[in-house]
Amino acid sequence: MQRVAETKVGSNSETVRRDNLKAILDHLHRLGPVSRSDLVARTGLNRSTVGVLVGELSQRGLVDEIPGDRGLRGRPSPLVRPIPESAVVLAVEIAVDSLAVALVGLGGSILHQVRLRLDQVTRQPQETVEEIAHMIEGLRAAHPFPDSRVVAVGVAVVGVVRNSDGLVHLAPNIGWSGVPLASLLADLLGISPVVVGNEADLACIAEHTRGTGSGIPDLFYLSGEVGIGGGAMVGGDLLFGAAGYGGEVGHMTVNLDGVGCRCGSSGCWETEIGEEALLRRLGRSDEPRTPELIDEVIGAAGEGDEQVVTAMASLGRWLGIGLATLINVFNPRMIVLGGFLARVYPFAAAEMYGEISRRALAVTRSGVVIEPSSLGDEAQLLGAAERGFERLLADPGSWTANGMEVGAATD
Amino acid sequence: MQRVAETKVGSNSETVRRDNLKAILDHLHRLGPVSRSDLVARTGLNRSTVGVLVGELSQRGLVDEIPGDRGLRGRPSPLVRPIPESAVVLAVEIAVDSLAVALVGLGGSILHQVRLRLDQVTRQPQETVEEIAHMIEGLRAAHPFPDSRVVAVGVAVVGVVRNSDGLVHLAPNIGWSGVPLASLLADLLGISPVVVGNEADLACIAEHTRGTGSGIPDLFYLSGEVGIGGGAMVGGDLLFGAAGYGGEVGHMTVNLDGVGCRCGSSGCWETEIGEEALLRRLGRSDEPRTPELIDEVIGAAGEGDEQVVTAMASLGRWLGIGLATLINVFNPRMIVLGGFLARVYPFAAAEMYGEISRRALAVTRSGVVIEPSSLGDEAQLLGAAERGFERLLADPGSWTANGMEVGAATD
Repeated sequence: MQRVAETKVGSNSETVRRDNLKAILDHLHRLGPVSRSDLVARTGLNRSTVGVLVGELSQRGLVDEIPGDRGLRGRPSPLVRPIPESAVVLAVEIAVDSLAVALVGLGGSILHQVRLRLDQVTRQPQETVEEIAHMIEGLRAAHPFPDSRVVAVGVAVVGVVRNSDGLVHLAPNIGWSGVPLASLLADLLGISPVVVGNEADLACIAEHTRGTGSGIPDLFYLSGEVGIGGGAMVGGDLLFGAAGYGGEVGHMTVNLDGVGCRCGSSGCWETEIGEEALLRRLGRSDEPRTPELIDEVIGAAGEGDEQVVTAMASLGRWLGIGLATLINVFNPRMIVLGGFLARVYPFAAAEMYGEISRRALAVTRSGVVIEPSSLGDEAQLLGAAERGFERLLADPGSWTANGMEVGAATD
Repeated sequence: MQRVAETKVGSNSETVRRDNLKAILDHLHRLGPVSRSDLVARTGLNRSTVGVLVGELSQRGLVDEIPGDRGLRGRPSPLVRPIPESAVVLAVEIAVDSLAVALVGLGGSILHQVRLRLDQVTRQPQETVEEIAHMIEGLRAAHPFPDSRVVAVGVAVVGVVRNSDGLVHLAPNIGWSGVPLASLLADLLGISPVVVGNEADLACIAEHTRGTGSGIPDLFYLSGEVGIGGGAMVGGDLLFGAAGYGGEVGHMTVNLDGVGCRCGSSGCWETEIGEEALLRRLGRSDEPRTPELIDEVIGAAGEGDEQVVTAMASLGRWLGIGLATLINVFNPRMIVLGGFLARVYPFAAAEMYGEISRRALAVTRSGVVIEPSSLGDEAQLLGAAERGFERLLADPGSWTANGMEVGAATD
């Protein structure tokens, strides 16, 4: 109700055309190849308008038409396809144990990706961005792409990120604080814009765009590894909070008698449901927390190892206690469990649901579905790519043979 | 990005005019009397457009001009004023201990209100709506108003409300479940629409519109009495959740060793920070929980009564533990404490802030301000009125001498 526009009748037809072009590209990017009839049905635009808009996107090199399946009458209906290589985002993930870089094409397909396991958890930001630059060179060698096709660099980082400028305020699990990550990367790579987001927020966007929670406006994504992060979609918009730090559910106090947390508090949710919490319950906290060790423990749960099953049940109980709070607070339609939590889910589900029935109001818990992520390890990269594509999707009319036109919005 | 409009160039100038009319009335309703220059500055519209729009609102009987203060040059600049009696909302509050009915005029002024103390907490819905109808008759006798001036009935209720149809799903503190409150009231009063909301959600709207949190997009309102309710404003929009049940923070588990709660769970936040929790700590749970008793206890805290001070400190500790979770989850700019919590705040603040420093991430807690409500007991009624006025504010061009035009949206 606060938005006010002066009367500018002259520009309105152009505005509508631009909105429609955005809508068509947005649908294609989300859905992949679809027929023109499908676009007509989904956008509510008439057939000839769809034709003109598809024509324009095709001229700009963003879409083409490919043969579809034969329909009932035996005539194959051609499908409009977003061309993956036409516009790409360099997606980066900075996790606790690994770095990943992916080339993600229009339509959200991962064209190529590299993941580097890291032994040493704490490392310098400068080292890290240099490693990322190096990985991107490798990507380019394996899958060459012209600079002009790069819409943006999108980065998911396991930390608290200020949305406005990509400053990593705090990433205790990798020992960072106050790192201007977006500008470090933009300077080193010579590519802009670089958009940075919290890994759970970005995974939530990916789940909402093309994952388990596709199209669900009230969605909560819970990422688990060492730290626990949350991304909340509220009425279709990601919850950022006043300064972009919303969703830090890993630091909700759940256990007043709990152990100390890296954040300085104690009894935080992540001290009860993260990887370290599981190892602590097994008396294996002293062993190096390698992916192989986690695989071994999860494997043992699958084989019914009693000690592991008990530890999983305890983890499930704490998982349920925290989820009950989130269900009462957010009344989400779906909660997606990602990463480590997706893997422990089968072994922790019974205790988890028990606590949820006890602690969430019947009216909210009866309306929520809890699912492990279908995007797996790729959710963060895909979410980072979504943030990168926003620029193109907001203004496809500025896309040319040389990429985004000079003068188009750069972030 | 999902919204798609067909090309309808002809209607655009009319749409812009209607949006501008809405913007002017919205500003006047929020701010009260302001000069035309002020409207020009705040809306970005030019002076002649503002003049035309004010003229239209004046013709429709919604605004007039009154003399303002003398300016620097000694010439009084007239102020455009929303006429309180021109359009009114019947605001109703169904609290645990009381019923209130108010006549709220355009601009958010309470023209007349009546509050009825109730001894008996549990009562039948039918009885309650009959009492409300009776109170409205009293209001009408004291302050006559024509039916045509009534925009809507807005109701705040201490329970979990389905936003779409005003069904009170659960209000354990008054013994209600599954009460179709909106339709019961509409039938009895013969007025429509009747919009019903959770009392904390509505108080949050009131604080955001004209209270302590005025204009703050990331705002949390915590209401306290027997039950604890929450209203979360996220990026300027109220958090409803998938089915309108969001913000039920009173049932977050904070104390795993805690006492049973009306909801069936135990250790819920409201069992630690509500009025009953305070009385329990004083060993006075058996006494009838009257407003006088609460006044007495708060008075004793003011006089430094040691036992009460200790109980307040304990309440403050639990208040801080839960607020730390909300700060981590929502990263709000402001938290407003309402009702009972506004009154205990001075005595609970030290312990509350202590827990918040311990348990909320530095980056989120440093950006939040915690304030007692400035609207006091009237926040719920004012919020209910805001929901009622939405219909008029969304379409002031449909307002006539006979109220909203037939055919205008009714909810």
